[in-house]
Amino acid sequence: MPVVVTNIERLPRDIVAGFADLGVATVHEAQGRKGLLGPAMRPIYRPVHIAGSAVTCQVTPGDNWMIHVAIEQCRAGDVLVVAPTEPCTDGFFGDLLATSLMAHGVRGLVIDAGVRDIGTLTDMQFPVWSSAVHAQGTVKETVGDVNTTIVCAGQAVSPGDLVVADDDGVLIVRKEEAADVLASAQAREANEVEKRARLEAGELTLDIYGMRDRLEAKGLRYVEAGEDE
Amino acid sequence: MPVVVTNIERLPRDIVAGFADLGVATVHEAQGRKGLLGPAMRPIYRPVHIAGSAVTCQVTPGDNWMIHVAIEQCRAGDVLVVAPTEPCTDGFFGDLLATSLMAHGVRGLVIDAGVRDIGTLTDMQFPVWSSAVHAQGTVKETVGDVNTTIVCAGQAVSPGDLVVADDDGVLIVRKEEAADVLASAQAREANEVEKRARLEAGELTLDIYGMRDRLEAKGLRYVEAGEDE
Amino acid sequence: MPVVVTNIERLPRDIVAGFADLGVATVHEAQGRKGLLGPAMRPIYRPVHIAGSAVTCQVTPGDNWMIHVAIEQCRAGDVLVVAPTEPCTDGFFGDLLATSLMAHGVRGLVIDAGVRDIGTLTDMQFPVWSSAVHAQGTVKETVGDVNTTIVCAGQAVSPGDLVVADDDGVLIVRKEEAADVLASAQAREANEVEKRARLEAGELTLDIYGMRDRLEAKGLRYVEAGEDE
Amino acid sequence: MPVVVTNIERLPRDIVAGFADLGVATVHEAQGRKGLLGPAMRPIYRPVHIAGSAVTCQVTPGDNWMIHVAIEQCRAGDVLVVAPTEPCTDGFFGDLLATSLMAHGVRGLVIDAGVRDIGTLTDMQFPVWSSAVHAQGTVKETVGDVNTTIVCAGQAVSPGDLVVADDDGVLIVRKEEAADVLASAQAREANEVEKRARLEAGELTLDIYGMRDRLEAKGLRYVEAGEDE
Amino acid sequence: MPVVVTNIERLPRDIVAGFADLGVATVHEAQGRKGLLGPAMRPIYRPVHIAGSAVTCQVTPGDNWMIHVAIEQCRAGDVLVVAPTEPCTDGFFGDLLATSLMAHGVRGLVIDAGVRDIGTLTDMQFPVWSSAVHAQGTVKETVGDVNTTIVCAGQAVSPGDLVVADDDGVLIVRKEEAADVLASAQAREANEVEKRARLEAGELTLDIYGMRDRLEAKGLRYVEAGEDE
Amino acid sequence: MPVVVTNIERLPRDIVAGFADLGVATVHEAQGRKGLLGPAMRPIYRPVHIAGSAVTCQVTPGDNWMIHVAIEQCRAGDVLVVAPTEPCTDGFFGDLLATSLMAHGVRGLVIDAGVRDIGTLTDMQFPVWSSAVHAQGTVKETVGDVNTTIVCAGQAVSPGDLVVADDDGVLIVRKEEAADVLASAQAREANEVEKRARLEAGELTLDIYGMRDRLEAKGLRYVEAGEDE
Repeated sequence: MPVVVTNIERLPRDIVAGFADLGVATVHEAQGRKGLLGPAMRPIYRPVHIAGSAVTCQVTPGDNWMIHVAIEQCRAGDVLVVAPTEPCTDGFFGDLLATSLMAHGVRGLVIDAGVRDIGTLTDMQFPVWSSAVHAQGTVKETVGDVNTTIVCAGQAVSPGDLVVADDDGVLIVRKEEAADVLASAQAREANEVEKRARLEAGELTLDIYGMRDRLEAKGLRYVEAGEDE
Repeated sequence: MPVVVTNIERLPRDIVAGFADLGVATVHEAQGRKGLLGPAMRPIYRPVHIAGSAVTCQVTPGDNWMIHVAIEQCRAGDVLVVAPTEPCTDGFFGDLLATSLMAHGVRGLVIDAGVRDIGTLTDMQFPVWSSAVHAQGTVKETVGDVNTTIVCAGQAVSPGDLVVADDDGVLIVRKEEAADVLASAQAREANEVEKRARLEAGELTLDIYGMRDRLEAKGLRYVEAGEDE
Repeated sequence: MPVVVTNIERLPRDIVAGFADLGVATVHEAQGRKGLLGPAMRPIYRPVHIAGSAVTCQVTPGDNWMIHVAIEQCRAGDVLVVAPTEPCTDGFFGDLLATSLMAHGVRGLVIDAGVRDIGTLTDMQFPVWSSAVHAQGTVKETVGDVNTTIVCAGQAVSPGDLVVADDDGVLIVRKEEAADVLASAQAREANEVEKRARLEAGELTLDIYGMRDRLEAKGLRYVEAGEDE
Repeated sequence: MPVVVTNIERLPRDIVAGFADLGVATVHEAQGRKGLLGPAMRPIYRPVHIAGSAVTCQVTPGDNWMIHVAIEQCRAGDVLVVAPTEPCTDGFFGDLLATSLMAHGVRGLVIDAGVRDIGTLTDMQFPVWSSAVHAQGTVKETVGDVNTTIVCAGQAVSPGDLVVADDDGVLIVRKEEAADVLASAQAREANEVEKRARLEAGELTLDIYGMRDRLEAKGLRYVEAGEDE
Repeated sequence: MPVVVTNIERLPRDIVAGFADLGVATVHEAQGRKGLLGPAMRPIYRPVHIAGSAVTCQVTPGDNWMIHVAIEQCRAGDVLVVAPTEPCTDGFFGDLLATSLMAHGVRGLVIDAGVRDIGTLTDMQFPVWSSAVHAQGTVKETVGDVNTTIVCAGQAVSPGDLVVADDDGVLIVRKEEAADVLASAQAREANEVEKRARLEAGELTLDIYGMRDRLEAKGLRYVEAGEDE
Repeated sequence: MPVVVTNIERLPRDIVAGFADLGVATVHEAQGRKGLLGPAMRPIYRPVHIAGSAVTCQVTPGDNWMIHVAIEQCRAGDVLVVAPTEPCTDGFFGDLLATSLMAHGVRGLVIDAGVRDIGTLTDMQFPVWSSAVHAQGTVKETVGDVNTTIVCAGQAVSPGDLVVADDDGVLIVRKEEAADVLASAQAREANEVEKRARLEAGELTLDIYGMRDRLEAKGLRYVEAGEDE
């Protein structure tokens, strides 16, 4: 039986806000390299960078009815995450739905399917990550679930999970791990500032990370060009 | 026998002009969701938006000779639509051919194959929708047809059909249906202005479209998070 | 046995500099339509245009260790060319490695795999051509070769070969052919200036290239629309 | 308005029968290398070889209702050709519909979408060419056209056109050209018998087709291995 | 922290056995059209048909170590379901691992990645569904989870879920729904026997399902070929 | 300038013969996991298994003329390896060319492009590995190289290199490494016989390879289902 789960738990506002300055690649590293959506998920414009709480929405191919239902469950600071039950390039989402989401403070859309009106969406600066762009319209015939665990672009997403998305793509951080991941990612970010300065000064990662012994132990040889390789 | 059809019939100038303000998604809805080229057809730069009359050109893989022939058949306000007889990513078109088309007032190119010189084409602001970008050159050996009905990106296109193209992709409107579709699309556009205002004010599509009864009839249930779902 | 070849031969600075003004499509034509990497290789931002000497680097899927090794072999004016031993969309390269390459005067990266931090790379204006964008991290476990001949996006690349890359994609010019190709490409470019002027004035390529007789000989017919085709 | 065209014209029985012994590649050559469906169209089992008259059927993604309608329009000796209005891998067709088609003497199905029950279809020896295999079911909500011209796998197909299909794929021969193409294909086939005998005896195509002079004129050189190439 | 869950709960033997005669398409319909893995999952030989309890295994790209660990958790009647954390075509599995699985009564392998030794696997008649065939070997460096919920080919799979797989692909039935789905699928199967007989006798689905009124209500018209359509 | 290199060096007959019993996966492991062509290269029928010396042939898209030239350079025991200069699905090769190759004792064809007449090729039992099947014909206009180093499906292949191909795909062994690789592969094969016997008896690879300590050291934990994971 199709179900809409209401009043899902969100992460505290300050935790979500903490992720707003952290890139997808940094957070991905900080949480042990998991949670990434597949590389087919691309933003419709760049640069772009958001973090928010997931409201999840399962749709069937060619039918966007449940997106209409899901909007009512969204609050300011949320990110709507939509997945079809099987691959579909239809344009499930356009400028009218984006207007509605913006009116309710939603920070962006992540959809493993197509979107349309991307010219207007870009003018509105409403962030969208999708696996296709296509003007093909959809119907409103089939009910499904809102705010249950779904699979989006190869990744399980539960309602209230944290979504971080930027020019590189989309990452999911489990709700219960978000505080730890935030601390770890911020530490990582701080550490990179120092490394970047050393690299700008011309130091090599071979030296910064002390890789030379291990390379030699693995048998790597250096030969002059023209010598017998 | 290969043939070039000359002096094809075009739509009246005011009808074509009417489409210049209408997005692909809107016109696609207005004509009953048909006529869209496949989602692999992408513009080489954005934003972009054109409408014009189709001059059609069939090429063979790796051979752009017929594009040279087709240019002579183009008039101001036309859009050149090119399809190879089978899939090919070669760069059939570059800045010299674009210079020639612009000199004759052609509004853009739609090609289910590759193009090149896209840096210069972008500087020139000559709109192109293609399924690939590749510098690979082509030969001039095989003659084919100009201004016959072709299949481009999964869609039949006849000479004189209306082409509307924007950031979302490319749409074909049959010549004989263009006047009706224009009226219908303009009405649709007007209707969206009002809806957008209501959505901006925070109303939900569930209410604007009166969807709640039908959702309930389909068995959709609402449960609080944490309740037994 | 894995090997790093040091002090590879580069082309004279003036030859490399000569290619900086020439587009990929022009050079591709000038060298007889060879040397192009596949159309999946796309720049992460546009417009972009570089020329430089190739430093080559073979990596294994999901392992970017040899890129760290390769950086030490790069000099000002080089382009780093990286290929995995089999297809992989992982993000092998990000902003820290780019900072290191920029500090040593490297002009860009060509990689038949994924990259990440593309927002920052764009801000830095460090040019990258890749076949994917993905935040997925890599390990540092496997040693391989630097500055041996590799296959990148379907094209053999040897250390010291010239790399030309722009919005259209990436082209390799063999070291030993570079001087001849440069002369030929410059001549071609000069020739195009005149052609462009004639096309802007409305002349047709059918006349400029004298194609009409050959088209007729191939049997191409012209018929008025509405006549019996 | 959706329409079903009844009592379409078929080719004479003896012409269709003449194609039953001719492979797709041979007929494709005989009609000037046109009419081939794209290479994604593959048979569900091999070997297989049919020829018949096309009954065409347009469906929408995920909706197979019009196939039910189309079956009534099929007669013994027909081939049902189905195309969705946009790409879809759903399983539009299974063993029950195949049972119905076989009961009416239909020779096979060509569908640019998915099919299911292919184990049973193989046991029944009902030939199918499709672009996907997937068990995903479809609905019966949308009406469309039967026996109008459709685009299937990149090729326009009109009702009554001849369909030839074998292990290589699917070919369309225009109704009005079928008699000429048959004669030409049969002549070609006869000619190949003699060539095959000469090739079996060890003769080379270089000699049979007299290619050596033309190769030399194009500048082809022969050098011994180890010589300076 | 990586974990192996031991002694997972399996479904009663008779329920699993009941699915052995039911095709993927039938069970998919019986459970409301959910649970299908994506169409890229294909069997390495045909015909093939199995049902069993899922043992799940998460691997990282290019690393098959956890398959070795998972085998110990398998019992007679199980099906091993393997998913990489991101797309990979490497050959994670070959004839030695298959020998081990067969020795413990495992009924087959489902893997969203590559396999190798498929000639030998076919000779052994060990069923495998995979998304690629490639001889590329893998390493044994990274530990992961066995018998936790994974995402395989777009579908969440929990340990002990029922797997049904045949020529059409692979379907997952939730453990807790299996008994109901079995009853429903058997009823469906029985119903199809009667329908098949009527179809073989030449009846049309238009009549068996009583579709004609609904088609007319939707506006479908019938016209004779040659009439004004 | 296009060139045909004649009288290339082949490996001794007994070395080639030694590979005839060894699978692609085994030899791939024995030579350090290199030399595999990409997974898109599939045999047109199964089972199939050959080994032979490479004659290489570079073609341009849609032009098979150089295959005719290459046949003259083939001797008994060779395998013809063909690569287009860029991706192409055309049918470059059919039953007449196969007849000619068989007449000269050639063992098979490897082509990173399309082939046709696969029904007849299967009847003839002429082995072919290709990346596509398509009936689309090709022309004979462009000369290229025979027996130079080419890139085929991502792998460099030199004339006289050893080709091993079976149901899994295609592997290249460098001429100069073939004797060593043969010895190593035969030892590996012998070793697998013993392992297979132990696995058939129910032993686990965890014990045969002594993996348990290393797994524990990596932190892998075992928990009973239902316990707190």
